Order: sequence, then C-alpha cells, then structure tokens
Amino acid sequence: MSTPIRVTVWGENVHEQHEPEVAARYPDGMHGAIAQGVTQHLGDRVTVRTATLQDPEHGLTEEVLRETDVLTWWGHAAHADVADDVVDRVHRHVLAGMGLIVLHSGHWSKIFTKLMGTSCTLRWRSAHDRELVWTVDPTHPIARGVPHPMIIEEDEMYGEFFDIPAPDELVFISSFSGGEVFRSGCTFKRGHGKVFYFRPGDQDYPTYHHDGVRKVIANAVEWAVTVRPERAEPTLLRYETEDFYHGHGYGGPL
Amino acid sequence: MSTPIRVTVWGENVHEQHEPEVAARYPDGMHGAIAQGVTQHLGDRVTVRTATLQDPEHGLTEEVLRETDVLTWWGHAAHADVADDVVDRVHRHVLAGMGLIVLHSGHWSKIFTKLMGTSCTLRWRSAHDRELVWTVDPTHPIARGVPHPMIIEEDEMYGEFFDIPAPDELVFISSFSGGEVFRSGCTFKRGHGKVFYFRPGDQDYPTYHHDGVRKVIANAVEWAVTVRPERAEPTLLRYETEDFYHGHGYGGPL
Amino acid sequence: MSTPIRVTVWGENVHEQHEPEVAARYPDGMHGAIAQGVTQHLGDRVTVRTATLQDPEHGLTEEVLRETDVLTWWGHAAHADVADDVVDRVHRHVLAGMGLIVLHSGHWSKIFTKLMGTSCTLRWRSAHDRELVWTVDPTHPIARGVPHPMIIEEDEMYGEFFDIPAPDELVFISSFSGGEVFRSGCTFKRGHGKVFYFRPGDQDYPTYHHDGVRKVIANAVEWAVTVRPERAEPTLLRYETEDFYHGHGYGGPL
Amino acid sequence: MSTPIRVTVWGENVHEQHEPEVAARYPDGMHGAIAQGVTQHLGDRVTVRTATLQDPEHGLTEEVLRETDVLTWWGHAAHADVADDVVDRVHRHVLAGMGLIVLHSGHWSKIFTKLMGTSCTLRWRSAHDRELVWTVDPTHPIARGVPHPMIIEEDEMYGEFFDIPAPDELVFISSFSGGEVFRSGCTFKRGHGKVFYFRPGDQDYPTYHHDGVRKVIANAVEWAVTVRPERAEPTLLRYETEDFYHGHGYGGPL
Repeated sequence: MSTPIRVTVWGENVHEQHEPEVAARYPDGMHGAIAQGVTQHLGDRVTVRTATLQDPEHGLTEEVLRETDVLTWWGHAAHADVADDVVDRVHRHVLAGMGLIVLHSGHWSKIFTKLMGTSCTLRWRSAHDRELVWTVDPTHPIARGVPHPMIIEEDEMYGEFFDIPAPDELVFISSFSGGEVFRSGCTFKRGHGKVFYFRPGDQDYPTYHHDGVRKVIANAVEWAVTVRPERAEPTLLRYETEDFYHGHGYGGPL
Repeated sequence: MSTPIRVTVWGENVHEQHEPEVAARYPDGMHGAIAQGVTQHLGDRVTVRTATLQDPEHGLTEEVLRETDVLTWWGHAAHADVADDVVDRVHRHVLAGMGLIVLHSGHWSKIFTKLMGTSCTLRWRSAHDRELVWTVDPTHPIARGVPHPMIIEEDEMYGEFFDIPAPDELVFISSFSGGEVFRSGCTFKRGHGKVFYFRPGDQDYPTYHHDGVRKVIANAVEWAVTVRPERAEPTLLRYETEDFYHGHGYGGPL
Repeated sequence: MSTPIRVTVWGENVHEQHEPEVAARYPDGMHGAIAQGVTQHLGDRVTVRTATLQDPEHGLTEEVLRETDVLTWWGHAAHADVADDVVDRVHRHVLAGMGLIVLHSGHWSKIFTKLMGTSCTLRWRSAHDRELVWTVDPTHPIARGVPHPMIIEEDEMYGEFFDIPAPDELVFISSFSGGEVFRSGCTFKRGHGKVFYFRPGDQDYPTYHHDGVRKVIANAVEWAVTVRPERAEPTLLRYETEDFYHGHGYGGPL
Repeated sequence: MSTPIRVTVWGENVHEQHEPEVAARYPDGMHGAIAQGVTQHLGDRVTVRTATLQDPEHGLTEEVLRETDVLTWWGHAAHADVADDVVDRVHRHVLAGMGLIVLHSGHWSKIFTKLMGTSCTLRWRSAHDRELVWTVDPTHPIARGVPHPMIIEEDEMYGEFFDIPAPDELVFISSFSGGEVFRSGCTFKRGHGKVFYFRPGDQDYPTYHHDGVRKVIANAVEWAVTVRPERAEPTLLRYETEDFYHGHGYGGPL
C-alpha cells in the first residue's frame, strides 16, 4: 500500500457546464465536492487529484492510472462520450489492482457495466424522496462511523430490480419515501482490484455535501486499496508438474 | 419453462477439422458428443440441436436464440473469430433469460469474459493429470447423482488462481495429480439468465464421453432454464410515486 | 424427491388460545391458514398436516419428521416452551436433508437461532405499517409469480440490523411505511438441508390470508425439498489413500 | 480498534500432556507455538497471552474475554470437556465483536459448531500427505504475503464434504497428495464478530512451526479485529415511527 493513498476523482463535468443550478450547487464541480469530502475525512492519509471528461484522454492516461491507488467515478449525461480505449485502460488497471468506487449514475457507465457483465439497469424517479441508508453489514470497514440509518433529506430515487451480479458483500440497503428499496452499497472483487458501488448522489441534490455520504466514500477509498505489493494483471500461464512458481507464456492453442 | 427444454450445443469445431486425432476421438465433433450426452440423460425432456462457428452467423441467429432455452458453449482455438455482434446477441439473450453453460476452454471465450467482467485467466498444463471432481454443495441440483468424488482418469489441468468473480454458488472443486486445485463448477446469475461454468473437457482427452461429465452437463441444462415466463431484458424505467407497476421509458439525462 | 411433497406445518398455537381477536382472525389457527395456503397453491403436489406445541412431543416425533420433506415453523410467545430435545431432533433432520421454512417471529425460535449461530435479533414495531416486498433475485424459484413489489397493506414492521449470517441468496427485501428495510426472504443451506426465512406474517394482521404471501410459502416448499435420495446426516469418516468411497467410523482422538 | 491488538491463544493442551512425541514437537505446547508465531509476525502490534483447558474457567473468564480483541482456538481430544457456560460466554463475546480464529481440529469444537449451526464434519486421514494451500481470493488481507501455493510438506488430510455454511469468503483451498481437496481458509461474520477458520495444524506434525502457517494466523488476527468502537451484542428493540435512534427494550410477546 502506498502511503498516502493516491486518489483520482473522476467527474464527467457536463451538468455543471450546462445547468446553472448545478453549477451553483457544486461551484467546484461535483468532482470538486467529492474530492473535498475525501480530503476532509482522510487528511494526509491521501493525496487527491481530479480529472474530467474534457481533459485529454479524459485525464486518465496510462501514467495517471499507474499512479492512482483508487479511482472514483461519477458520470451521467455523457457515458457514451467516454472513449472505449480509456475504458479498456481503466478496466485493465482495475484487474491489475487499482481500486474503483462507482458513484450513483455511474451505474450505467461503460466501465461499470464492463466490470459487472450485466445491464446495470434499475428503476428511478427524481421527486425529492427522502433516502434512508441502512447498514446490513455492521462490521464492514466501509460502514465504520456511519449512522444507522443515515438520513439523506432528499435525493433521486433508485429502486430494485438493480441488474447487477449478486454483490460479494451487501453493506447498505436504502429505502425511499415512496417505498422503493435499493442495494445501495455493494462490494465486488474483479481480478486483483476491489470495486465499491455507492448509490447516493445526484446533480440535482446537494448529496456530495452530506457529511455521512462523504464519510462512506472516504471509508471506501481506504477499503479499496489492494493489499498486493505491485500492480499486475492476472495472466494465463502454463506450469510444469511440480514447478509451482514458474509459469510459461501462452503459445497459442494449435 | 418450455417443455421439452430447447438446447443448442455450440461447438467451435476447429480442432476436429485440423487434428486427425481429435476427429478420431470425437467423430461427430465435440459438440456432437456433448449433444449426445445431454440427450442420453434427459431423453424426451429436451430437444437438442448443434451449431458451429462455421455456420452462417455461427448458427446463432436471432431466431435460433429466441428458440433456445439453454445454450452450451465450447471454444478454444478460435475465440477471436467469433463475431462481436453474435457475442452481443448471445449476451443480450442471456440477460433476457437464456441459460448458458460454458465448458472448459470456453473460459476464455468472448461471451464468458463479457459476462464475468474479468480476465478469466488461470494456470494450465496438458500432461494427462488425473482429475478428481469433489462436490462441495451436496444439495445443489447440478450435483444430483454425481459421484463424490467423480474420477476423470486423465484430462488437461486447470489451476488457481482462476480470475472470475466469486461465484454465486461453488458446486465443485477439482484436484489434479500434480496437486493443483480449481473451482470447477460455478454458478452465476446475470440479468434474468443463469450461467454455469464447468471445467472438465479438452479436445485431447475423451472427457465428453465420460458418463459423469455428461450427467453434470445434463443436470446443468435443467438447472439453467429460467423460471420467468417470457424472455425480457432488464430495462431502465422511471416510476411515479405510488405507481409501482407502470414504468416509463428513459428520455435521456438532460 | 417424494411425490407428493410431505409438508408439516408447525404452529405454536398460543395467541389463538389466549387472544379472541387472533382466534377470530385465524379461526383454524395460524397453522391452519398456512396449511390452507400451501394446499391452495400446490394441490395434489403436496400432502399437508399440521402439528402444534400442545401435541405430545409438540407433534414432532421421530416418525413424523422422518415422513416430513418440508417443515414450516411459526412461533412467537412460547419459544422457550419448545423442548430442547425436540429442537435437537428437528436440527438433526434438517442437517440430514429435511427442508425448513421459518416464518416471521420464528426468527427467534430455538431451531432458527441454533441453525444460524447468531442472535437473530432485529428492530420492530407493530403500527400497521404497509410492507412492500421487492424481489432482488428475479430468477429464483421462490420468487416465481410473485408481484414486484408485493404489497401487504398492513403488517408488523421488522427492520435492520437483522443479526443473521449473510444469506446464501437474498431473494426479497422489504420496506415499511416508516422507512425501515429488512432482508425478508433469505435462503441458507445447512448440512443436507435447505432453509428459507420469510418475514411477513403476524398474529395481529391477516397476513396468512394474503395470496402473495401464500404463493411465496408454496414456492418455498417446492424449493426446500432436498435433491438427495435419502435422509442422512453428514458424518465424520476416515478414508485411506486412494479409497475414496469407503469411510471408516471415527475411533476417537487418542 | 485497541492498539496493540490483545490476542488470547487458547489451547486444549491435552495431547502435550499425554503424548511425549507431541510434547517434544511442541515443548511450549501447541498454544505456545501459535502464540510465538503471532508475536513473530506482528511484534509490538499485538500483546499475546495464552489460556488452556486446565486453567480455572479454562482461562476464559468474563474479564479475560472483555480484554481480548481476538481469540484463537485449538482443541481436539477434549472438546466435550469444555464447559457449556464458557462456550456460551465466548459465543456472546463473538456476537458482541470479539474476533475468533478456529484452527484445524477446532472444527469440531463446541464454539465453532455453535456458531456455524452445522455438524462441521469432514473426511480425514493422518498419513503424511503433502498439503498445498492455494489462494483463491488474492486481494484478501489474510492472503497477503502468503506463497501461492503454500507448501506444507506433511500434515493430516481433511477432505470435502466439509459441513459448514457456505463461507462469506473463501480464501484458501487445499489439496493433498491423496487427491482430496478442502476449503481450508474461510471467513464468516456472526453478529458483530468476525470468524476465520484455518485448516492446517495437527498435533502429530510440526505445522505450527511453519512460517507460512504462522503468517496466515497473524494476518487473520489483524483481519479479525472488529471495526466497531465498543463491544455490544445485537439486541432486539422496538422503535417508534420516525424515531430511528432510540429503541425500547422488549417487553414480551403477550
């Protein structure tokens, strides 16, 4: 584990450019608010930078990813504009050990659906529902210090069925004023990387100024750091009998 | 559930064309042997057809998939030759409810890696290891009537780490003469579809003539049929408060 | 699998004796209503009998259990009055392959806490909350034909944290008018037996007359039948090298 | 989390008293060897004490448990001699947040079977099998720095079917010279406590002098510390509508 944890907060940064009320709500961008929340809770245990869709290569060059322990992802209006080769690069880094935290509408991002293998669809409504976030795994490090329930006075509603693989760990379940429920905090391991999906957060609500939401994201950053000493993708290798430690590269099937 | 279950056995059918010893081992193709095994065990509870890479659209047209309850997949030498649009079509049908059984070297197929979201790599050796297949979920329907352990006198070795998501259910673990172990029977749900990965089976060994292996595949066919009445992909819809049953189509983010 | 499935519906039958309004709500006892629901949905695919706390050995003799494929359990006021040796007997039969469906306040029964190993505590309130039961595993046989959501106009509230082991499969999540959530449909395998916990149902509400609730219980009955041909507890045995099928009885540690 | 972690290593200490060859192999007792391994790897991050069956209350008084963050458990010949009230006390502390690491033949201890709810039986043989311990969850903290595979030159064999609930996380799978496999590293959460079962280690082999085995146990000690600030059992409480944080004690069912 590198110390401090190197965090890259990725933001789509489209609503902020086109909708004045979003810009007013998040004057430093949604990515700015998320980055502030991580720093607020983890202090000098992290170094945080931001990157956005509009940056060259969306700010996610090979070099940036190599120097990123944990990447957070928020996108919504422009999922389709994220370049496929950047998605492939992020995917490769996750399998090699980079942590990934996918936030709210990032459920429909290319990187999340690629990692899940499913449609990641759900039901939704933006009608100022109150959200209650209940902890169902009280010894999980991501739930440490989080109120039970955590109350978010208003937010967009996401409801089941959420088309994801059954998570490795279900940490939070949300309910909404309207009665819907959602598996709102889910962990997944993929390759050598750890992935956390966290539901709250929408451009139309001040969710990323909510201290509990920020606490969860900060906890997730610490949890998502891989324990492996170096970044390396799982690889297909041939091993001779009794030589358990020296694999040979694959020479092709025929 | 349709009765009988409509099974399509897909075979890459490349080794059989290029390697006389494989053709001698599997005179009806590997897909032919697999199809025979399913019919042998399920009789008139199934109708089985085969399709291969060489068929137009690899034999997996929209019409064929619509009429397929469960698809089995064996590929190895020509994963890259499977057309992406066919893979997308199969993926869509799995999410909509088609069962999928991925066999042996199909672990590296486009459809399996797309459903898993990982590299699906592993360690391997082809050295006539004896494989023992142990049941670790003795009430699972796929294990019904399967010897504990099931002995396969010789087969290719696959060893851990197998880079897949933690399976929903781990049904079988294999050991090999050389000492390696492998999670050799794994279930996954994706969307409305059920997926089973089963390890045994290689072109260089007569594995698909093994009665126990055939029994497992037949059990998996019955297990993989979805319980949902019609094939439908999970869909993102908007729901008004208190109207739980009538979703609206998505109109875009902005 | 025996055909028809032999179901024993166990009811504590205490509230019905002491509270006239419960007796009026459930004139055949709560166990009577549950039994009727199973028969209503499964017809001649089941034979159903009932047993109660007041019967000799609570109606759960060795002979009755031996002839029971699936046992359903409702208790509340008199958990402590269930004899320990009967609990041990039921436990032994579950490990040997008998299915068990634990209903509502049965969460705190001796048999359920013994099978779970935890306190099985939760938060609750009896205040006529509306319950919505959402399916989060849409291909699970227990969810077949169940509305999404299933609406129960009023019922007792149970909320998280529910102190159970993480279930093997999470089938249903409930929300309540008050905003609480609950993992209300959970499967567990223990030994050779299958266990389903289902939340709805309280003596103070007509829950077991609700058709959807009855449908779930009937589905669970079919699901809980073990696939193993004979009832047998897992046993500790010694096996000589290469003799995989003939275990020897344990002779003691010293 | 207390710093340093307070570890109590519990040993049955019976074989060491009755079998000279065991005493020679483990001159400080098996518990002594385990304690040394923990200290060797964690140094001043832990304080380690030992307790044995022969101590008053088996060395596990309320006071000792209250001051124990993580308890390790090895027993074999005298499971039945462990007093039920001590088992209940340990169980209560686990549910309230104490970590528990169960080693090898501890699978059949009263505390482990009570926490699992199953028979915890398995197949076994003591015939100097070589054990290979393979990591199947490479980002799990318990696997950090552990060779893949870890080779134990000789040990007792444990084989499947191991009658435990499906573990929350499967970290290690072992194979043996004879071909058997075993889920040898399994995590479980119970209440507010974390439980790890680790297979290697027998009185007839020098397993607890093996550096890799010691490394795993040390990793598990760090993993098993609960993240909750105070020890408290999950409790059943009544909550009024909209009062999410102030539960009332249970007043009985009638």
